[in-house]
Order: sequence, then C-alpha cells, then structure tokens
Amino acid sequence: MADDAAVPAIAIGPAPDPLLEDAVRRGGARVAPLESADALVWTTGPIGFPDPLPEKIRWVQLNSAGVEEWFAAKVIRPDSTVLWTSAAGAFAATVAEHALTLLLAGVRALPEHLEAKTWRQQEFFSKVGTLRGTTVAIVGAGGIGRALIPMLAGVGADVIAVNRSGSPVPGAIETLPTTRLGEVWARADHFVLGAPATDATHHLVGAAEFAQMKPTAWVINVARGSLVHTNALVKALRDNTIGGAGLDVTDPEPLPDGHPLWNLPNVIITPHDSNPPAVRPPAFAEHVALNVTRFVAGENLTALIDPVVGY
Amino acid sequence: MADDAAVPAIAIGPAPDPLLEDAVRRGGARVAPLESADALVWTTGPIGFPDPLPEKIRWVQLNSAGVEEWFAAKVIRPDSTVLWTSAAGAFAATVAEHALTLLLAGVRALPEHLEAKTWRQQEFFSKVGTLRGTTVAIVGAGGIGRALIPMLAGVGADVIAVNRSGSPVPGAIETLPTTRLGEVWARADHFVLGAPATDATHHLVGAAEFAQMKPTAWVINVARGSLVHTNALVKALRDNTIGGAGLDVTDPEPLPDGHPLWNLPNVIITPHDSNPPAVRPPAFAEHVALNVTRFVAGENLTALIDPVVGY
Repeated sequence: MADDAAVPAIAIGPAPDPLLEDAVRRGGARVAPLESADALVWTTGPIGFPDPLPEKIRWVQLNSAGVEEWFAAKVIRPDSTVLWTSAAGAFAATVAEHALTLLLAGVRALPEHLEAKTWRQQEFFSKVGTLRGTTVAIVGAGGIGRALIPMLAGVGADVIAVNRSGSPVPGAIETLPTTRLGEVWARADHFVLGAPATDATHHLVGAAEFAQMKPTAWVINVARGSLVHTNALVKALRDNTIGGAGLDVTDPEPLPDGHPLWNLPNVIITPHDSNPPAVRPPAFAEHVALNVTRFVAGENLTALIDPVVGY
Repeated sequence: MADDAAVPAIAIGPAPDPLLEDAVRRGGARVAPLESADALVWTTGPIGFPDPLPEKIRWVQLNSAGVEEWFAAKVIRPDSTVLWTSAAGAFAATVAEHALTLLLAGVRALPEHLEAKTWRQQEFFSKVGTLRGTTVAIVGAGGIGRALIPMLAGVGADVIAVNRSGSPVPGAIETLPTTRLGEVWARADHFVLGAPATDATHHLVGAAEFAQMKPTAWVINVARGSLVHTNALVKALRDNTIGGAGLDVTDPEPLPDGHPLWNLPNVIITPHDSNPPAVRPPAFAEHVALNVTRFVAGENLTALIDPVVGY
C-alpha cells in the first residue's frame, strides 16, 4: 500500500458524492476533508465556495464547461495562484450530439414536418435538404467542436474550424484563426457556435454576419446566448435572410414567454438542455478520474482555465 | 478510339437525360437507341416499359431502391433472362441521414420541444436522451443500413444488424440472421427498419414486437410502410409502450387526413421525402456510372435484383 501522506488528497464539495469519490480513487488519489486536501472537486456554482481556499489547495476542478459566472463572482481572479479546471470536454460529446440533432432537424425541415397534418410530399420535396456535401463552420472549435467533427464527417459534411490560434483542428478541412472569422459567413453552408462567452465573443453573430450567409444556412448555438445578437437574429429569421436557427441557448435566458423567437417557424429552441442531468454525472466522473490521474502524475491538467483570458 | 462495335451500347429511357448520358460515357460505354442497345437505363416506373425487351438487351438498370411495383406489374418475372439492377445503395446515404435525423430528433424530444412556447428546462431535463452508449438494431441491413452504421458510430451508438444471411455487416457489433430476429426486440434500445417490402417482411413489427421493446424505444421506418402493423403501432404509441416512431413511410400511403398518426405527440412523419428529388439525379448518375463500368468490364453488377426472391 502507498503511504497515505504520499498519495494526493482530494476534497469533494459542497456535498459528498460516491461517483466522484470512486473517480478520485480510480485516478490514484484519496478522498480527504477540505482542510487537509491538495485539491478540490466542486460540484455546484460559486455560491458557498470556500473563498479564500485553504493554502494547501493547488487545484480546483469545477463541474461546468462554461465558467463565466466564476469570473463574474470574482472567485477566479487574474492573480490566482491555484490551478482551475473546468468540465470542458466532459460533456462535449452529448452537446455535440445535440448540435448535430438541431442541424439535421433544420436541414431536413422537421419543424415544418411536425406542423403538417396532411401528406404534403410534393411541397416537402423542395424543402428537405442534406448535410452531405455541405460545409459546416464550427466557430469556436473547442471540445464540443472536436467531438462534432467526426459526427459531421459521418454524414458527409466538411468542417471549417475557427479557433483563436488557427492551429489545425484534426478532421477539419481547414482551420482559421479568429482574425479570419469574417471569411466564413459567406463561405460555409451552416454554422455551429461553440465559442465561450467572453467580451471578445459578445454578439459575434449579428446583422452584418447574417447578411453574408446563404439563405439556406442554419445557425446552431449550443454555446452561450450572448454570442448572437438576438434582435438581429429575429430579423434574419423573419426576413428569411437565413434558413433557420437551432438554439439551445438564448439571450436573454431563460427566453421570456411571448418572445418572438417562440413563434417563428424556422427556429428550434431547446431550453439549455443539450447536456441533460441524467447524462452528466457519469461523464463528469470520467473527466475527474482523468484529471486526478494527471494531477497525481504531475502532468498537465485537461480543461485548464486561464484566469486572465476568462475561460 | 475504341471500335464503336466493341463498346457496349446503353439506351436511356423513356426520355433522354444528359446527366445519365454523361454517366454512361464515364462508365466506358456509349449511348444508343433501344433497338441497338445491350442494356437499358430506365428512369421511371413500369408503365410504358418496353415489354418484351429487344432480345439484345442483357441488363436493365432501374432508378428506385424498392422494386416491388416491378414484380407486382409482372415486368420482372421469375424466369427473366436479363439482369435487373435497382438503385439500392445509390440513395442509401441520404436515406440513412434521414433515419439518423428522425432517431436523434426522437431521442432528444424535438417534437415536444417544438410544441413548447415557454422555457420548460426542468421538465425537459428528464426527457432529453442520448444515442451515446445505446444499441440500435438495423432490421434489414442493406445499403441504407450499411450507410447508417458509420453515422451511428459517430454519435457513439452500437449497431446490431439483422439480414437474411446473418453474414457479418462491417461496423456492426453483431449481425443476426432473420431467423433470430425475435431476439432484437427486447435487446436493442432503438430500431431502424431498412428491409424491402416482401411477403416475408409484411407486418414484421406488430403488437407482439412492440410489447417486447423498451418504453423509451424509438422505431424509425425509412423502408416501406408495410413492414409495420399500423394499428398496433398506433396503440403502442397511445399506450406509451414505446417511446415514439419516426416514419418516412406509412401504411396506407399517402397517410390519409385525419389518421390517428397525424395527431399523436410521439410521432414524426415525413411524407416519403427522405430522398428528395434534388438530391437524386447526381446520386443515381454515380450509381449508373459505377454499374456501367462493371458491365463493360464483365464484372458483377451492384444492386442486382433476384427475380425469384422479389428484391
């Protein structure tokens, strides 16, 4: 048996969690109270978070992929000396599956099919499209985008990835740095937004961008509502400037009753449920086990948050 | 230049078709009138088909994947001496994409999402599922099934294939012969029907089969309406015996106005439009070019119809 003192100690909070305790042990560490722990796995939001942290804590694992509320609450600060990791990537596959669902449903005209109560075959013949042979731009190709690429490849779509650095994303036919983002709006057939919510990505897609898109383009947002200028989207949908929008996130969120987006025919809204709770715990536990393994081995952690950049 | 007489001659009927003429030439043959042709590419149904065929004709290429009307019209007879090929496989990818769309839309509760006009997140949390980690049975794993397998693999689902011979289908975790079809109903999470319409497949799925399925199971039919016992399906959907049904084909078809299937909340109906006309010509031309190449080379043709078995 390893000497207990040599095995890193991980606290789990705010409440005990058998699945995560198991993940910590599988990762080669032991579960310990916060006061004697080297790291903390935190399963809720910033409210009630132990701030300041005990000095011994070197790493905090959060359980959401988006972490802007932690910056807004100033719990993660630019001068932070501990390592913070998010759950980015842990839920990537299920969110990517949701994005694929919304995009396919849009391209294959499911909203209108579901309205129909009569066999309108001739009419639908001109409305049903295919993703095969199309080009999908993934704007903000992080974990979700990387998980989505093989799904899109499976249905024969090409992917243009856009990320900060422009360093090639495996499986994409081309990766552009965000400085060349302006090129994709006219070029791609459809768009999946996967970028984090930051000042730089606020209203990334607005009237000028919609105007450049093809009239058949579907815009899928599974990231954060703030990426899209909502009023410009409503206008683009009303004017059929674009084909439609699949939105798992909205701005404002929750989307208020009576909002025009609820009643447009070319919109699919899912209430931020792309990563449903039943699917989360096992996926997060796998993510924790992986990061504990890396922490124990002194390797780079996955989904490291940059306290200065904001995600 | 090849001696014209040495180059097989292919007729195209009933009307000229530049895309297919090009496909014939790309396949290494020449376009000729029916009277002097070695083979015929026929782009419509059996009405108006030249029966009997000129004696020189050795091969007929039809342009649909399902060919039961050709048997019903007795144009294809058990004692036929020409080779008949269907378009099976030519439209496989687009129909498979449609099946994936219906299945994902069902599992992710899109019909109910599209009904919602308010942000019902908590409620949907328990309704949104995932294909990841599920097992999908493809019943009748021909061209559509083979095209669907990599798409399902992309979203992390396993496939059990069922075909006549039980000879392993690439990418399936298991292939069962139709004699063992009875095992799949209780075992798989979801079902995609891809079998041809024959006497043997008539009402393949009825009350006894629905009763064995999981209450979350979605049944997707992109093949022929006759595979499913419609009244049993309606009852299974009303009683929530199964999760839902995604139907691109129905029995009767077209589905009459007022039919109960139009008004059930857990059904997605698309009016046999999984393979929309705009997508068909280029896909069929590729199929023709491939088969002409094989015909010219004296190789086995793809999508060969068995005049005795009936598909």
